[in-house]
Amino acid sequence: MDPRVRDHAEILVDHCTSVEPSDDVLVQVPPAAEDLAVAVAEEVGEVGANPSISLRSSRATRAYLRASDPEDFECPDHELAEMESADVIIIVKGDRNTATMSDVPSDALSAYTQARRPIQEARMGKRWVGTQFPATGNAQKAEMSTEEYEEFVYEAVNKDWAAQREHQAQMVEILDPADEVRIVSGDSTDLRMSVAGMKTVNDDGKKNLPGGEVFTAPVPDSVEGEVLFDKPLLRHGREIQDAYLRFEAGEVVAHDASKNADLLASILDTDEGARRLGELGIGMNRDIDRFTYNMLFDEKMGDTVHMAVGKAIEETVPEGQPLNESSVHMDMIVDMSEDSYIEVDGEVVQRDGTFRFEDGFEK
Amino acid sequence: MDPRVRDHAEILVDHCTSVEPSDDVLVQVPPAAEDLAVAVAEEVGEVGANPSISLRSSRATRAYLRASDPEDFECPDHELAEMESADVIIIVKGDRNTATMSDVPSDALSAYTQARRPIQEARMGKRWVGTQFPATGNAQKAEMSTEEYEEFVYEAVNKDWAAQREHQAQMVEILDPADEVRIVSGDSTDLRMSVAGMKTVNDDGKKNLPGGEVFTAPVPDSVEGEVLFDKPLLRHGREIQDAYLRFEAGEVVAHDASKNADLLASILDTDEGARRLGELGIGMNRDIDRFTYNMLFDEKMGDTVHMAVGKAIEETVPEGQPLNESSVHMDMIVDMSEDSYIEVDGEVVQRDGTFRFEDGFEK
Repeated sequence: MDPRVRDHAEILVDHCTSVEPSDDVLVQVPPAAEDLAVAVAEEVGEVGANPSISLRSSRATRAYLRASDPEDFECPDHELAEMESADVIIIVKGDRNTATMSDVPSDALSAYTQARRPIQEARMGKRWVGTQFPATGNAQKAEMSTEEYEEFVYEAVNKDWAAQREHQAQMVEILDPADEVRIVSGDSTDLRMSVAGMKTVNDDGKKNLPGGEVFTAPVPDSVEGEVLFDKPLLRHGREIQDAYLRFEAGEVVAHDASKNADLLASILDTDEGARRLGELGIGMNRDIDRFTYNMLFDEKMGDTVHMAVGKAIEETVPEGQPLNESSVHMDMIVDMSEDSYIEVDGEVVQRDGTFRFEDGFEK
Repeated sequence: MDPRVRDHAEILVDHCTSVEPSDDVLVQVPPAAEDLAVAVAEEVGEVGANPSISLRSSRATRAYLRASDPEDFECPDHELAEMESADVIIIVKGDRNTATMSDVPSDALSAYTQARRPIQEARMGKRWVGTQFPATGNAQKAEMSTEEYEEFVYEAVNKDWAAQREHQAQMVEILDPADEVRIVSGDSTDLRMSVAGMKTVNDDGKKNLPGGEVFTAPVPDSVEGEVLFDKPLLRHGREIQDAYLRFEAGEVVAHDASKNADLLASILDTDEGARRLGELGIGMNRDIDRFTYNMLFDEKMGDTVHMAVGKAIEETVPEGQPLNESSVHMDMIVDMSEDSYIEVDGEVVQRDGTFRFEDGFEK
């Protein structure tokens, strides 16, 4: 087995989820990542914990969704019981074909996500991590050979997370006590929001592997202005390009996209919270140096900002602050590398992708 | 997709487990059988039930078992919770390499089975079925090309189960009211047991697919004599050949095997019940016309008898009768095609593989 797979497994079990003896560990891995499932099983065995390892077939999910009536969707009680009873959850993505879900109607996908919301919520209270295996489909989507893509993934994943944490702490110090944030990019994006009272999290690769961002929650009603997400995003195997949102008093009042605008619309219509922002994130991982059509990596790129419509991440919302609820959490990215800046409480903290605390910053 | 896979899925969901709307259906399938997982997902979706579909990697289980200390084994609470909450369980076997478990110490395998006993017991109270996918490893083990083996499996599985049930009912009528059964084969096997008060079950492919046997439980203390299981059996990827057991007052008092006698010994040592018989079965499926090193099929062959050490099958033991408890249930086969007979209450009911109610029977 590729030794990088073993390194990846060790980081997942030790750094990300701190698996301890007797922990009940739920591992969900795509069939293409069976090697990683094997390596994780070995690590969990060495610790003396109890794994339940499950390869999840997106082909089977597609078949179920196409055969079902979306009105019949229910939360499967047995899956919920398993999730509620687990201590640690390790979820791996990776597809032989990233377009497997492309012929499932988007309303069925939204209804399915909605029905399974209790499972997602049960996970949120646990030690969990989501990560990526360099499967052939993801390599193809990234327009890379499988070998080059493997190198890309393992560079981003198997790294010194303590050093990354220190780098990011500089931005946490700026954002955590801040009131207002303004994101400006070209003529198309000028968005203001309050982050007052919210908590900025230093993502050092614990819940997302790779990590490499700092993120917080906007005050839900405070978002004003417009934003063009000029990096494409992949949702259920379909690509949304140039998503545009206009906000008033925190709510999306206009939206469009140059490709799959209907899919964007159906996601925004999922529930009340899907029309509000739940996250503001700033990418800071300089090792992720190219866009690969994969949000887990793309949102961590060093000169991007991302925002998610839908559910806020609970650890960013201290008790007593308003938390945006939704069954959706969809991240979208703005390229900040040119003609762009981030302002915090009236001061520019990043211009054209370079942070105030980095060499080459121009106020 | 091979249309025989869809037929197989339909029989599993309709005939075997009678899946109904809103049922929580747990589907466990090896990675080699992903096509069958897809077809089952589709059937379950059409019914309006809720599937949780899980590909189970024997490579991952092997890695876990080799890395663990058997003294640490615990029943994973999250897997137990999932099983307890399920309405229907569909379990598929099929391996790319049937020897995957061959380098796991047999005491680790026994301890693992023992630790997971509550999961197995939770399943027994549900609607469940175990079946086979014609994977390459199983074809190789059967000494057949994959294509020929696929034909063999689907002939045995996708068939008229009502007709098979009628054929078998003739043997149920003989065995169900009986007191004593005697199995004689050559010089090596002469075993007597009581089945008084036990229930004979007509296996028409509901819990095992293929089905094709009638089976009951011996009264645990009644088994006397010796038996040579002259068909080999595969256990955790290792082959036990010529298993020999001698019983006194129901208990194994001597045992041997010409290959992997240590594995046989460790299984008999698992617990108290592992040294007693839990099942007597009579194969009656004439469509299974060759031995394929696969108990699910081999035990259904028309001119064989099988017995299992370990746990009795609950539906064969009416309330008030003694039920043999164990975490083990290991079937072993006696070839009855030559120089053999089955006697029920002193009357020969099968000689050299031919039943009393079949053409060519000689008393």
